[in-house]
Amino acid sequence: MRIALDAMGGDHGPEELIVGALLAVEQADLYISLVGDESLLQSHLKKIASGSQAADRLQIIHASQVVGMDEHPVDAIRKKKDSSIVVAFDLVARGEVEAVVSAGNSGATMAAALRKLGRIKNVSRPGIASVFPTLKKPVVMMDVGANVDCRPVHLYQFGVMAAAFARIYDIQQPRVGLLTIGEETGKGNILVKESYELLKESSLNFIGNVEGRDVFQGNVDVIVCDGFVGNICLKISEGLAEAAMEMLRSEIVKSSAAKIGYLLSRPAFKAFKKRVDYAEYGGAPLLGINGTGIVCHGKSSGQAIKNAIFEAVHMVRNNINDVIARDLGAYDISLGA
Amino acid sequence: MRIALDAMGGDHGPEELIVGALLAVEQADLYISLVGDESLLQSHLKKIASGSQAADRLQIIHASQVVGMDEHPVDAIRKKKDSSIVVAFDLVARGEVEAVVSAGNSGATMAAALRKLGRIKNVSRPGIASVFPTLKKPVVMMDVGANVDCRPVHLYQFGVMAAAFARIYDIQQPRVGLLTIGEETGKGNILVKESYELLKESSLNFIGNVEGRDVFQGNVDVIVCDGFVGNICLKISEGLAEAAMEMLRSEIVKSSAAKIGYLLSRPAFKAFKKRVDYAEYGGAPLLGINGTGIVCHGKSSGQAIKNAIFEAVHMVRNNINDVIARDLGAYDISLGA
Repeated sequence: MRIALDAMGGDHGPEELIVGALLAVEQADLYISLVGDESLLQSHLKKIASGSQAADRLQIIHASQVVGMDEHPVDAIRKKKDSSIVVAFDLVARGEVEAVVSAGNSGATMAAALRKLGRIKNVSRPGIASVFPTLKKPVVMMDVGANVDCRPVHLYQFGVMAAAFARIYDIQQPRVGLLTIGEETGKGNILVKESYELLKESSLNFIGNVEGRDVFQGNVDVIVCDGFVGNICLKISEGLAEAAMEMLRSEIVKSSAAKIGYLLSRPAFKAFKKRVDYAEYGGAPLLGINGTGIVCHGKSSGQAIKNAIFEAVHMVRNNINDVIARDLGAYDISLGA
Repeated sequence: MRIALDAMGGDHGPEELIVGALLAVEQADLYISLVGDESLLQSHLKKIASGSQAADRLQIIHASQVVGMDEHPVDAIRKKKDSSIVVAFDLVARGEVEAVVSAGNSGATMAAALRKLGRIKNVSRPGIASVFPTLKKPVVMMDVGANVDCRPVHLYQFGVMAAAFARIYDIQQPRVGLLTIGEETGKGNILVKESYELLKESSLNFIGNVEGRDVFQGNVDVIVCDGFVGNICLKISEGLAEAAMEMLRSEIVKSSAAKIGYLLSRPAFKAFKKRVDYAEYGGAPLLGINGTGIVCHGKSSGQAIKNAIFEAVHMVRNNINDVIARDLGAYDISLGA
């Protein structure tokens, strides 16, 4: 299988991305197309991959432009036809690769995917799912940013797509919850109240409302919300995890005993950090596009990029899009989706 | 000054509440009316306060009913006219106390306040503000749950009211940010985009959009959002803080060195926990009601109840409602608020 990696996206430049690609081809029987500025990538590749047996399974595909992290997604995609993210999805459209992984502008990644691949049949609005760590198994939240103003049918479809994603990770009957501000039926804003009815009537394993505090408990497998709320959840969690570590560190340096204690427990801290650190995670799958795409955190480590590549492979092997197309059947048509 | 404490609200029963009230009268020149079941409160008071010089500044006001944490707020208030929360706000309405503190059902607290006291002139929708810890000074977020479906004028008014609250804590020109999913102008859902325009034209010190990750950085003093989003932020932060401590603890017990390390750094952990623990905080002020009310976390410690009582005193002394009425002037009328 061949995967395209947008080698220009992200906050750290191509190095970490190439490190991730090399890790992936060293650990699995894969081919990767690194998309971006040929001479720049060539020089990084020489430094990073020379001497590796697997390096010949990395190929460079030239793209002369880059979409910046702060560019307007749709405008950027329209103007920069030779940008690495557009060229990468073009490789999928032409059947040369099976999926795209990008740590760049997530809106532009979605826009390029939609332009080059379109949507799966019956999907009204593709979205971005994100995997949150919990005290038990991870939970999949959708949408986390692609759709800020939603109708109930969109939330229902996010549930179907995210449940299909959870199933390829061996969660047989994913418990689907609706994110709102009280567990009782009838709590929430108008969108949530109306979505509740659709979810309740669907064939999903819908367990009802869940609250913000349930996200990290691990008692639900899929959490449905609109992309505005989901993105805020993602960013606030990330911000709090960082700030909490910072606050704890500032308390620890106040006493020598605490400092020594911290040194002794540092491996535990590292393991904890790895468990909650978004940069260590794979990536967020674009669900609903007629192909496979993953967006990673701009700060992703090589390890996270490798994980995202494996996640893309797993999605392709399990034909997740066929599952989504099948699951979005008669009920959706009756909803006028 | 006399404050009413709903002595029946909260998850732990009256003990912690009475402990908090006693701490308050011991530390400040105050009178407190404990509202609830007379014989029950009498017996707790005997155990907790006997021997304290300040105990004679605690008074019991009988109320025969209690609103449960899961009851529907408006229904409960209508039916339970002799509930502790209704009786408490009735004391304010009759001029016998200056403010109410409750750790009970927050919706019912707001409903009782509205029924007994009404709104401040020009306020369209009173709301609940919440104080979040950050790496620098705390930030005030509003609304955190009273108003789930909002119009732009409501978000603007939350900004005015929360800024007035920040000012009584000596933040002269509170920086007001609008919570959304990207820092650039024009990012967000329809409500946020329209609210942006109102905030920009207002006399507030509006610094533009802020993201979820900015909440804990301390670079903004007031964060404006609708009550659905705000409540989810509050609950997800609380849930993550708890889960993170749990995850860290589970990593620590895996190694003896880490366990010893943890023991050595425990004071730092405790200080950290105090810094982020919502149960340690005072309470969330109801802003926009024609009187003073504070809702506390159901799990509040006596310390937190004491802090909330002092917060109520501080709000009354600083005439925050006069400030809000003055600040919501001509601009609001022009908005048709």
